[in-house]
Amino acid sequence: MAGLLERFVRGDRRALARALTWIEDQQPGFEQLLHATHAGLGRAFRVGVTGPPGAGKSTLTEKFVLLCRRRDQKVAVLAVDPSSPFTGGALLGDRIRMQDLTLDDGVFIRSMASRGRLGGLATTSLEAADLLEAFGFDVVVHETVGVGQTERDIVSAADTTVVVLVPESGDAVQTMKAGLMEIADVFVVNKADRPGAENLERALTATLGLKPRADREWNPPIVRTVAVEGEGIEELAAAIDAHRTHCHKSGVLIAKQRARSAERVRDLVARRVDAHVWQESGGEKMLERALDRIRDGDATPYSVADEIVAAIGFDSGLVLPGKEQREGA
Amino acid sequence: MAGLLERFVRGDRRALARALTWIEDQQPGFEQLLHATHAGLGRAFRVGVTGPPGAGKSTLTEKFVLLCRRRDQKVAVLAVDPSSPFTGGALLGDRIRMQDLTLDDGVFIRSMASRGRLGGLATTSLEAADLLEAFGFDVVVHETVGVGQTERDIVSAADTTVVVLVPESGDAVQTMKAGLMEIADVFVVNKADRPGAENLERALTATLGLKPRADREWNPPIVRTVAVEGEGIEELAAAIDAHRTHCHKSGVLIAKQRARSAERVRDLVARRVDAHVWQESGGEKMLERALDRIRDGDATPYSVADEIVAAIGFDSGLVLPGKEQREGA
Repeated sequence: MAGLLERFVRGDRRALARALTWIEDQQPGFEQLLHATHAGLGRAFRVGVTGPPGAGKSTLTEKFVLLCRRRDQKVAVLAVDPSSPFTGGALLGDRIRMQDLTLDDGVFIRSMASRGRLGGLATTSLEAADLLEAFGFDVVVHETVGVGQTERDIVSAADTTVVVLVPESGDAVQTMKAGLMEIADVFVVNKADRPGAENLERALTATLGLKPRADREWNPPIVRTVAVEGEGIEELAAAIDAHRTHCHKSGVLIAKQRARSAERVRDLVARRVDAHVWQESGGEKMLERALDRIRDGDATPYSVADEIVAAIGFDSGLVLPGKEQREGA
Repeated sequence: MAGLLERFVRGDRRALARALTWIEDQQPGFEQLLHATHAGLGRAFRVGVTGPPGAGKSTLTEKFVLLCRRRDQKVAVLAVDPSSPFTGGALLGDRIRMQDLTLDDGVFIRSMASRGRLGGLATTSLEAADLLEAFGFDVVVHETVGVGQTERDIVSAADTTVVVLVPESGDAVQTMKAGLMEIADVFVVNKADRPGAENLERALTATLGLKPRADREWNPPIVRTVAVEGEGIEELAAAIDAHRTHCHKSGVLIAKQRARSAERVRDLVARRVDAHVWQESGGEKMLERALDRIRDGDATPYSVADEIVAAIGFDSGLVLPGKEQREGA
């Protein structure tokens, strides 16, 4: 690890790519790496971009990245592909288009598609963002389809979350309404040259008026864009800047960073405890053997959970009927 | 608990309602109650009903319940209200309409709106379903808006999952596509007398053709209904019956029950370990005190997670720089 860390600190992009793979694969030493680079955090701005498929998130992100570069900011993009063959495929296609940007040393783009590991995709993505920030990127963009809770967790961990919609999104707005309203700091009505843009904006305004937000002092602006033409990108950047300034002044940023630290500690503890219970203490094997007993009526999930918790030395505080019998067996 | 259990076993509906409240509030003894009634499981059929808001899930469920009653089946409905003021409100409105059904002793309807408890809403809902099954209901229906992962976890734990769409759902289908395709055993195109029903059906058929399903031998049928008129409900029931027969014959039902038991054990262990780490072992207090140190750069989430895991006697297997210093402090 020492060699990799040294090259990372020197600004070696290949060391960065390698370190990201360590994190994605949870290779031994990846937590030490994140611990060692943690001091470099707190400077970058994190932007989350989400919305339904086909809303033009990738194009919008691409134009936003180009604008950041004109401002001399280094930008990293982390795109989260749900593992589904449907959306996963589409996102990868978009990524290939964006590769043109990677000829520029001030830009770094990475897709993350892994799922099902201990700790989950959300934690891994946020750890990857930490690493990119520690490497020296000024802006880190999380881009993801706003489908599952995981994807929402990722973007809502950003300092500013942009929700991208299109005039056709009426139904998606309805579906994702509660979740969207809670996380959106800035709304984008993309493809705003199409019919229905005004209706969508009106619907959003009406819904915003109803919803009590955690941060009452910020009223999410609605920005109209035509991303493929580059229209509205300056306005979007201005809205993001305004939210950033608001977060700084109001103390929201410090509160967000604190909540993010707490959330990270919880995730890490869960990851370690899971490994301890299910792998190191043999929980998986106990569970596998117990399933037949549950099927045959000789145990219940409650008594089996008791056994597994007892095996790792916790007192579950429960006295279930039949416990003596099991202990005698 | 003994008195409640006795009245529950005798078939006292008030004891059932009280026991459900115990589960929702996680009152002391609720796990013993579930353990004690676990032997009564394995007979009822569980149907999950999900779909975007406005798809007519409640009306469809109501008509399905009436049909089950004509077949002399006892039916319980568990409706999960996301805690959002938006959808939560709408679902409650629907519930009030459905209360007419509760004059019938063979029907039981309950809304569950709680969130954020240890173990989460999904576990609590599935525990409530267990209790209803143990009470003697032949069919348990889980009805929920298909928005978050939690709601999907609940319905996909059913033996047969019905996904309800309407001709207007095109965009919602797009948004929820991956998730829907994975969990749907039966599709309903409700409000099928409206324009666009055929297009939706075609889009669904096309998407179904693409997707490799876990259960390759079942091709989800698409049933057209007009729930308010009661049209197509017999066909829906027939499709559910066909899936049930398929699950029985193919061994899928046994595999599902086994997976459900395993999942339940995992959830229970997580609930107990969480309580142990964060409450009983003082993890919450350690975390609260550590956040300032993280902010000041004197600790990182990784070193704090180490400390918390060490406090409960686990060896995290990590050697982080500065550990000796912390232990000496």
